[in-house]
Amino acid sequence: MSSAIGIGLVGCGTVGAGVVNLLIEQADMYTQRTGKTLELRKVICRAEDVGEATAQVPADALVHDLDEFFATEGMDIIIELAGGTGFAKTVVERALANGQHVVTANKALLAAHGPELFKLARDNNASIGFEASCAGGIPIITAMQHNLTSNRITAMYGIMNGTCNYILTQMTGQGQAYADALADAQELGYAEADPTLDVTGGDTMHKLVILASMAFAQQVREADVPASGIDTLDLADITYGDEMGYAIKLLATAELTDHGLALSVSPCFIDKHEPLANVSGSFNAISVYGHAVGHTMYYGRGAGRMPTAAAVMGDVLNIATDAYTTLYKNLNLWADQQPAATPIDPAQLTSRYYLRVNAVDKPGVVGQFSKILGDEGISIAAVSQHESEEGQHVPVVIITHAASTGAVQQAAKKIAALDAIEGDPVMLRIIDMPEG
Amino acid sequence: MSSAIGIGLVGCGTVGAGVVNLLIEQADMYTQRTGKTLELRKVICRAEDVGEATAQVPADALVHDLDEFFATEGMDIIIELAGGTGFAKTVVERALANGQHVVTANKALLAAHGPELFKLARDNNASIGFEASCAGGIPIITAMQHNLTSNRITAMYGIMNGTCNYILTQMTGQGQAYADALADAQELGYAEADPTLDVTGGDTMHKLVILASMAFAQQVREADVPASGIDTLDLADITYGDEMGYAIKLLATAELTDHGLALSVSPCFIDKHEPLANVSGSFNAISVYGHAVGHTMYYGRGAGRMPTAAAVMGDVLNIATDAYTTLYKNLNLWADQQPAATPIDPAQLTSRYYLRVNAVDKPGVVGQFSKILGDEGISIAAVSQHESEEGQHVPVVIITHAASTGAVQQAAKKIAALDAIEGDPVMLRIIDMPEG
Repeated sequence: MSSAIGIGLVGCGTVGAGVVNLLIEQADMYTQRTGKTLELRKVICRAEDVGEATAQVPADALVHDLDEFFATEGMDIIIELAGGTGFAKTVVERALANGQHVVTANKALLAAHGPELFKLARDNNASIGFEASCAGGIPIITAMQHNLTSNRITAMYGIMNGTCNYILTQMTGQGQAYADALADAQELGYAEADPTLDVTGGDTMHKLVILASMAFAQQVREADVPASGIDTLDLADITYGDEMGYAIKLLATAELTDHGLALSVSPCFIDKHEPLANVSGSFNAISVYGHAVGHTMYYGRGAGRMPTAAAVMGDVLNIATDAYTTLYKNLNLWADQQPAATPIDPAQLTSRYYLRVNAVDKPGVVGQFSKILGDEGISIAAVSQHESEEGQHVPVVIITHAASTGAVQQAAKKIAALDAIEGDPVMLRIIDMPEG
Repeated sequence: MSSAIGIGLVGCGTVGAGVVNLLIEQADMYTQRTGKTLELRKVICRAEDVGEATAQVPADALVHDLDEFFATEGMDIIIELAGGTGFAKTVVERALANGQHVVTANKALLAAHGPELFKLARDNNASIGFEASCAGGIPIITAMQHNLTSNRITAMYGIMNGTCNYILTQMTGQGQAYADALADAQELGYAEADPTLDVTGGDTMHKLVILASMAFAQQVREADVPASGIDTLDLADITYGDEMGYAIKLLATAELTDHGLALSVSPCFIDKHEPLANVSGSFNAISVYGHAVGHTMYYGRGAGRMPTAAAVMGDVLNIATDAYTTLYKNLNLWADQQPAATPIDPAQLTSRYYLRVNAVDKPGVVGQFSKILGDEGISIAAVSQHESEEGQHVPVVIITHAASTGAVQQAAKKIAALDAIEGDPVMLRIIDMPEG
């Protein structure tokens, strides 16, 4: 590359504004570090985004037409921050076909089309930097590409959605109901007006697809990951779990088993002494276990203007020094280079389970649960029942020993059919992390 | 580089054996990832290390003479695990002069001679990989070189000595005295027979020199870092701090201030809610604050055979793909490329302070302390005094507001001169980390 690196920016909302800010205010530092000048040539954004976010964009750089944008000379790197899988996909494909490097924060796009796009980059002697797509400012992809490569990664557990972690922290710490905590998160800007993708686990699933592909050198697809969210969580279960020494987290889990890759996104209980249990508020963290390095954890802000912009600019600097482009060419760790993943059947996911059943408090009812669980080959580690007036429904909490999800679901179905219980049993996984 | 990468290994003790193990057992994975075969050509080790550690070394690879070692053809990378600043320095210099890349875990060598060795590498078109030198398996150097580069780093706090952290965890959790906890650590292999370099803070200081040079793009030298250790800590102070909500940690601290770089290694109190406070046993962790990314933290095993070997091999793979060599050439972030650091005078290090004075329990004594502190411009945030029998010495704990170390030392000296107190006051910093 020449001594000037031309940059085109697509999307100038929250994160885009952060990128423009870094490019302008840290220009001298970046030149000092890379020996190159980073020149923002064009910014394309929606008319409705023009305003505070574009305040630092030079007037002649702002365009609204994609053909005009791509007609600009000397753009070596295209930063894609439009989001989604429509327009953004067109942008990334056009850039790569031109041999332009792409830096993106777009987890939905890479989860859906990563392998194809990585290959398109390879075929055009370009590269895609995507540190900002997973866990914002946490350099987890950097660690996987540059250092953990010496390990066979055996397991990964991630808190990768700040909205959900904020809501769960509020529910746990303040005893807020889900709807109240969500409303607070929206007011503080931690949750979108439409929080669906966050609270249902979809966003976390996207990130797990990207990270697990790299960690396990398998091409993981969205359909490989059973995902559920926090939107149906009951405060009562968080409280009962808390009393037993567990913290609730929306966890992406990926474990290498003898039968294949065990993948999941769901609210889970983890021991309060686990480092991940102490990750509060909108922070994210990922625990990665390598066969040689053991337990490593990466912690930081998973979203927000400047943390995400910092990750974007980290990629830009790595491309400016040619280091990332060299790695992209020579390291065989990208999803397009990997065989299709071999995920296990979700019914075979194995863990301990927390079951809560609203039972009629009469002698024999726990015996009935016990019999049903026993028939499915599930043994009980602990049972606790709150005091109640005779004849009322009371919550009975059962902690199982390790069992397959399928067996626990089967048992829960049979328990739900009993006369002595009300509603469907609540099932939550209890994740026992490896000794690290 | 050709499709075969020749490797020479210097030192085959604990970590060396781990490297040999990875090279042999993960050979296929490494070839799959890099497209290169990694070939262990020669291993040089002390005669007394031949045994369990060299069991996996091919018989014809083992040599004991350095000239014979360097006469071996086709060694592209020399892994230096001899340790120390004598023989190891000779090895590294010879390798670099030959244009051979060096991968090292040697913090003492890089703290003392990093800039000269980095330059020697540069002059010979070689590179030095040193991820394993700081915090073992934690990819902190990787993060600084590849991702945090987009930030102005404003502060860094590290728990970087597993021996000390194990001892402090035992003292805090089990109420063990220092000597007993050290003896346990030695029995478990967490502490050396001669633990001096660990417990006095020297080892942590070496790591801080290496990391701070990179984080702040300044050439930090050992003499820039005032260092003290845990060997004079009294269990009583850990207990009093614990009661007030503080955890004790041997902390490397580096903060960018208006007056220069504030550097220190010392046992410090930190709020129990800080992520670093929950780093227990022999684990290490480093919190890094970037102006854009905010608070990030990196956690893992700071020592041990396989975690350190994993870091070494991460560097080897990065060199095998040419990615690190490209970065080494093109990124201006190595200590030899930086101006000399501008550390502040240690007397001007500013923080809150914990002071414990053994006082005669009579009216007026706290007033005397208060007057002395006030004369030095130090204000008191809290005082606590344990009950005692009349006339006996009792510990009085004073928490100050932020004050310079010099002022607190001056006050402590005056307090020590009072008739009403016994012995020297205990002074411990209380570190308030930035909002991240």
